[in-house]
Amino acid sequence: MVAPMTTLKPATVQLATGGNFAVFTTLRPDGHPASQVMWVDSDGQYILINTEKHRRKYRNVQADPRVTVTIWESGNPYSYVEIRGVVHDQIEGQPARAHIDTLAMRYFGHPYNQDEIESERVILRIRNLSPNV
Amino acid sequence: MVAPMTTLKPATVQLATGGNFAVFTTLRPDGHPASQVMWVDSDGQYILINTEKHRRKYRNVQADPRVTVTIWESGNPYSYVEIRGVVHDQIEGQPARAHIDTLAMRYFGHPYNQDEIESERVILRIRNLSPNV
Repeated sequence: MVAPMTTLKPATVQLATGGNFAVFTTLRPDGHPASQVMWVDSDGQYILINTEKHRRKYRNVQADPRVTVTIWESGNPYSYVEIRGVVHDQIEGQPARAHIDTLAMRYFGHPYNQDEIESERVILRIRNLSPNV
Repeated sequence: MVAPMTTLKPATVQLATGGNFAVFTTLRPDGHPASQVMWVDSDGQYILINTEKHRRKYRNVQADPRVTVTIWESGNPYSYVEIRGVVHDQIEGQPARAHIDTLAMRYFGHPYNQDEIESERVILRIRNLSPNV
């Protein structure tokens, strides 16, 4: 039996799936970082960020996949983890559309508002490169 | 009378001085971003980050001054601001030592623990480059 190549510690997965917030940092074309507060998730192996294709952050990671995702515990920002990683691949279409509903249920308690989708939802799967995370 | 060249909106200064937390992102030598949750402050013109000289983040900004500071309102992370900027200069010595006490009073309610200072405190003064911040 082959074990999955999980690169995240259980505590990191718990933080990423616990309805906590993250700062997602990408690199602009000139190499300057750019950061936004985002919802975050994990499938146990990758960190997941759900965004849309027209966003600058999406264009940024197409050009340079290097990112950080900094997740803190709601109400206790001293408890946080930095995932320094790369966008490994992306998931598009219906799974990405369904995933934003899952996140909206978790964070808001109701499905995502379809009217707020301007282009197309996409899940960025981020592979962690940080040791001890 | 010459007005000071303030580059921060009052709402940004209020967020930065209100005992809120920030993710501070620097660039490692290879250009990969690195992020940490930090205390934050402002003098009204610059964003202030108080760190120590032995820290990697300090070495990072010596080599490349481009940073982001993402500050969110405690208890409401949907209310946040991204300061995309550069480290303009730094303040060392007693003013930097006194400043970490000011921050510790604000965040902890007591002065900073001297035993936790491993090298030398330094204030990074960050000039904002983002429009509308």
